[in-house]
Amino acid sequence: MSLSDRTEAERLDRDDPLASFRDRFVIDDPELIYLDGNSLGRLPRRSLERLRTVVEQEWGRRLIRSWNERWMDLPARAGDLIGRHLLGAAPGQVVVSDSTSVNLYKLAAAALDARPGRGVVVSDGRNFPTDRYVLEGLAAARGLRLRLVDFDELRGPTAQALGRLVDDRTALVSLSHVDYRSGALADMAAINEVAHDAGALTLWDLCHSAGSVPVELDASGTDLAVGCTYKYLNAGPGAPAFLYVRREHVERLRQPIWGWFGRRDQFAMGQGYDPAPDVSRFLAGTPHVLGVALVEEGAALLAEAGIERLRAKGVALTELLVALHDAWLAPLGLELASPRDAAARGSHVAIAHPDAFRICRALVSKAGVIPDFRAPDRIRLGPAPIMTRFTDVWDAMDRLRAIVRDGVHLTVDPTRARVT
Amino acid sequence: MSLSDRTEAERLDRDDPLASFRDRFVIDDPELIYLDGNSLGRLPRRSLERLRTVVEQEWGRRLIRSWNERWMDLPARAGDLIGRHLLGAAPGQVVVSDSTSVNLYKLAAAALDARPGRGVVVSDGRNFPTDRYVLEGLAAARGLRLRLVDFDELRGPTAQALGRLVDDRTALVSLSHVDYRSGALADMAAINEVAHDAGALTLWDLCHSAGSVPVELDASGTDLAVGCTYKYLNAGPGAPAFLYVRREHVERLRQPIWGWFGRRDQFAMGQGYDPAPDVSRFLAGTPHVLGVALVEEGAALLAEAGIERLRAKGVALTELLVALHDAWLAPLGLELASPRDAAARGSHVAIAHPDAFRICRALVSKAGVIPDFRAPDRIRLGPAPIMTRFTDVWDAMDRLRAIVRDGVHLTVDPTRARVT
Repeated sequence: MSLSDRTEAERLDRDDPLASFRDRFVIDDPELIYLDGNSLGRLPRRSLERLRTVVEQEWGRRLIRSWNERWMDLPARAGDLIGRHLLGAAPGQVVVSDSTSVNLYKLAAAALDARPGRGVVVSDGRNFPTDRYVLEGLAAARGLRLRLVDFDELRGPTAQALGRLVDDRTALVSLSHVDYRSGALADMAAINEVAHDAGALTLWDLCHSAGSVPVELDASGTDLAVGCTYKYLNAGPGAPAFLYVRREHVERLRQPIWGWFGRRDQFAMGQGYDPAPDVSRFLAGTPHVLGVALVEEGAALLAEAGIERLRAKGVALTELLVALHDAWLAPLGLELASPRDAAARGSHVAIAHPDAFRICRALVSKAGVIPDFRAPDRIRLGPAPIMTRFTDVWDAMDRLRAIVRDGVHLTVDPTRARVT
Repeated sequence: MSLSDRTEAERLDRDDPLASFRDRFVIDDPELIYLDGNSLGRLPRRSLERLRTVVEQEWGRRLIRSWNERWMDLPARAGDLIGRHLLGAAPGQVVVSDSTSVNLYKLAAAALDARPGRGVVVSDGRNFPTDRYVLEGLAAARGLRLRLVDFDELRGPTAQALGRLVDDRTALVSLSHVDYRSGALADMAAINEVAHDAGALTLWDLCHSAGSVPVELDASGTDLAVGCTYKYLNAGPGAPAFLYVRREHVERLRQPIWGWFGRRDQFAMGQGYDPAPDVSRFLAGTPHVLGVALVEEGAALLAEAGIERLRAKGVALTELLVALHDAWLAPLGLELASPRDAAARGSHVAIAHPDAFRICRALVSKAGVIPDFRAPDRIRLGPAPIMTRFTDVWDAMDRLRAIVRDGVHLTVDPTRARVT
């Protein structure tokens, strides 16, 4: 691959079987290179249409009748769609509702209740903050020990490392499938096996893998999983999250927030909580209809593209990022902070530099590129396989190279708290 | 007031200072009489505009930058707006996020943690289901007793009745301000005083009062409150709920779901959970931006109308309902199941009849009126003070009278599970 000019990236764009999906998004600012789809995905065109239908027709015109006509099964329908096309989960195990944090809380609590007498929760010291905090809160409330392990950053949690950490005191192993900083992709099946051998349950956070990396929840033996929909699923800021409960656990586990949407025969409004016999028992309050509808749209778009093709393009995009890093950035003192092996990497790449914050700010304010900054020293580049072009990656890296080479970032005010 | 013809209702509409607010809503079906605004409020016109701005500009164009530019303070800003105009709450005590059920869970758990050693939670056996269920779940998890009291249906919970029920074993008293069936309006200040005398905390559910009845959270000494926004606040199906924490409790209480939006200095993404010093510690995961934005719009519309005027109209609308019931329906065997004293009643009226289900179905399918059915025998009529006309009430009652008088409801299939 020749990197000296843009021709190779242009060829990759021409050969990209997903190229036409870019037109399925609202892009009013064609000059902007957006490499933060793994923080907030772009707006799909048909989400606008769906929003009009849900708001103007279903809410505005049909009013309360839409609950029976359209909305009651929406959390399960959207869940099944995600499950089938993106998570390797058969129907009846996934629902969409609440935030990732609330879902983490519900499922972790359910798991801990199912492993009484075991006093340890194992997670990753580099895990996404909300995962660490939620587990910390549950551990504190129950007098358990949260063991946050310092796994190797580039390898992430491995079955081998976990083998030395889990035992008959371990109630729950909760990890991210793709590390939000390094992009390290964990071997879910192997880790599940180690956890299960010790009698522990597993709870996976799929926020940075759902929609970009094939996930095989059923086949990998995963017990529980959660994930957000505002990144690769493009469902909008703070969109409702999903949760997965393995079929064999659905009727056995109970979550702690006994809201009316989790009750059997909810509209009888009877006395006493009796959990629904299906996965809807993991719902709590009234789901946000507009939000869940946009999750369904976002997931449908990814389903149409196909997770295998999305993964292939994600690999190709990050391979280009790595190659350009090696050719252009390594000589300038930047360092790859993601796995080199594409098979062990999600769909984003992190690059380390002591001045990462100012470099990111320079990219935003002087180069029309939106990356993500991750404290203290990471430039995180997250192309979205469904709509990022190879030339976007090439141009972004070219501008990043120029910024560092010419010291442009040194002219940027470092005191502003945020990159964007 | 002459009820024999429609003239009086027409006069009331002409004199209604809020009449023009009806035009602020999308009403494509002017023939429909919608008396279920206390299940799902109608769509405000400017919510459409706001949605376009949030979705197309803020999400679609500014992308991740909107978190810093527009969204981070949205939950607190919408909360303060509701607090100031609808809840009698000074700034810094209300946030909008999650569902009512999740907020109930968070605040009830926080209250129970603050009253260790007390083993009883007192609530209303007629309370809305999700309140009963959430409290039941918390009590079960903590080995506490949930005491569900059978208060008089038409009086609702009173300070006098509670005086005999709360003592130094009571950790929490959790009640609805307006009963979702009968509309009974509780004396919040008097009940708070009784609870506080016993050393208990109070948690009020404002779902059926916020936006229709003046609420004085600060002045009444309320400790904690929650409420939904999809009824009188017209924020759409499943819209995010609000929660209130009295200022003196904000820094003392901690809720159990330690999500990243509740952490101090969230984007430092540091190790260990440290709750934010302000009311945002009661947030958990990423708030749903579209949802919270529509809450802000709905609340702004009510603020413009003014809660005192909304209350005055709510009283007048339900007075008309009661008068028409007495004149037309009582002779047909229907029975008022709401307080007769307007000062002790929220903004809806319940009418009992053994065949209530079929009467409701006949109203929907044969008379163009949408009421709400509440099992087993209640027709619930919920005019929305901001947009329901007196002639709507007159016409609805006229049609209801005709249905029962002519036995139209007897021709309705009773086997369909739902009214609408």
